Amino acid sequence: MSKLIQQIASKSVFAKGEVALVGAGPGDPELLTIKALRFIEQADVAVYDRLVSPEIMSLLSDDCELIYVGKKQADHRLTQDKINELLAEQAKLGKRVLRLKGGDPFIFGRGGEEALHLLAEGVSCHVAPGMTAASSCAAYAGIPLTHRGVAQGCSFITGHLQTEGRLDLPWPALSVDSQTIVFYMGINTLETIKQQLIAHGRSPDTPAAIIEKGTRPEQKTIRGTLTSLPELVKQHDIKPPSLIIIGHVVNQFEEQNLNNNGYFQAIESEDAVFSDFRRYTAA
Amino acid sequence: MSKLIQQIASKSVFAKGEVALVGAGPGDPELLTIKALRFIEQADVAVYDRLVSPEIMSLLSDDCELIYVGKKQADHRLTQDKINELLAEQAKLGKRVLRLKGGDPFIFGRGGEEALHLLAEGVSCHVAPGMTAASSCAAYAGIPLTHRGVAQGCSFITGHLQTEGRLDLPWPALSVDSQTIVFYMGINTLETIKQQLIAHGRSPDTPAAIIEKGTRPEQKTIRGTLTSLPELVKQHDIKPPSLIIIGHVVNQFEEQNLNNNGYFQAIESEDAVFSDFRRYTAA
Repeated sequence: MSKLIQQIASKSVFAKGEVALVGAGPGDPELLTIKALRFIEQADVAVYDRLVSPEIMSLLSDDCELIYVGKKQADHRLTQDKINELLAEQAKLGKRVLRLKGGDPFIFGRGGEEALHLLAEGVSCHVAPGMTAASSCAAYAGIPLTHRGVAQGCSFITGHLQTEGRLDLPWPALSVDSQTIVFYMGINTLETIKQQLIAHGRSPDTPAAIIEKGTRPEQKTIRGTLTSLPELVKQHDIKPPSLIIIGHVVNQFEEQNLNNNGYFQAIESEDAVFSDFRRYTAA
Repeated sequence: MSKLIQQIASKSVFAKGEVALVGAGPGDPELLTIKALRFIEQADVAVYDRLVSPEIMSLLSDDCELIYVGKKQADHRLTQDKINELLAEQAKLGKRVLRLKGGDPFIFGRGGEEALHLLAEGVSCHVAPGMTAASSCAAYAGIPLTHRGVAQGCSFITGHLQTEGRLDLPWPALSVDSQTIVFYMGINTLETIKQQLIAHGRSPDTPAAIIEKGTRPEQKTIRGTLTSLPELVKQHDIKPPSLIIIGHVVNQFEEQNLNNNGYFQAIESEDAVFSDFRRYTAA
């Protein structure tokens, strides 16, 4: 395999005094891209937060300096400004600065703000897109985000509270039955999400799932409906990081075929095969 | 680097008689995941379509059998059924069958249909999520899909014509100013997309971009507005595969800083720095 990698990874060269904003994906190190791996390997200093998994951190070189900037939700804005400044400062010291983020830097990753600050400070940077939680967790949980005749598109939205503690979202737009809706960071606002989506016309019976620690060995997927999900989250003691998926795509597959790791296992019994086949032909 | 890869890639083991539905990403082989690369390396036969780049095809082993199933748009449904059958047949011959797709199998990739068919036929499969065009092309073009104060979420939708040649989309939901909208396969329906979004309340001046052959060396990005984009597409002779991004995220960065490859280059002149800085502080 090493020959393959060398063949591919010739472009992402990291110069001293530059920053690489790198998406580390949702946790499973196998979901790193070759490009991300290249930047990880070359870094002099890594600025990372709580969403980067230990296995991925272990890929940094032994002499790579580590700076943890794990953010508290309550103190968001101030800390992001400080992170921006830190990245520019470190680059100006002539280091190769790796900004390692969970997921994708440009999907709820605030990579745009960091890149704009760096350019304003005269620092060049690379953006390496990463596997975002929605598509990774969905694949591992057996949930196609789009599916013929079921979902013609998907929307990613944050359930994080806005300024003044409100959840100010375009509810009518999120209540269209033909779109899969994925909430990032929605666990604490799930009751509001449920009420608003139902109030704006989504059926209370719409299938819904929550995926805790998606793509990690301890991934847990709980399926229910828009109505039942908040209670299920309490019963199963689901904690962040977790991802919520709402829409008819959630139960296209039978749970008996799924393993929470992207492996879909055929069941030998004739009944099971017949039941799957009916689902498929009915879709 | 080979040691790193071995350390990571121990899980994705492909058994004979199984299928792996693998997302190859949008074109740049550096955007392959380690997991995808593992399955590519182990395949006995590869079933692929026109969206997989030649560099990625070249990573298959020399004795891997190749089956091309590039689809014509007009004859979609029939051909998908045949692909489903082909995958099951090949697996039942005891091969490790790689279904290699552009982008992500579960985002407009019809991976859900293939996996359901395989399970119904008693064939187990793996789904390896891939970098979807939206996030990859956006990063390479310098467009953050979400951005604080500008876009609180993003929606992916297909601009492909539905049955009977209509483009039957939830237009009001797509016309919310705070959401970035990404159209896959929208080039032939762009005039309708423009008219409908404006009719449903999106400002005609909303920034809009089209990215042709995203993440490939020949990537081309054209920026305009919702009003001007269809004409720009004609002027610049933009062809599929291309991706359309609509929303204020499109022009957060100055074109002079961008290189269509995810490298954001700081400009030395003081004026340029000042202009970027104003943008940033105003955002």
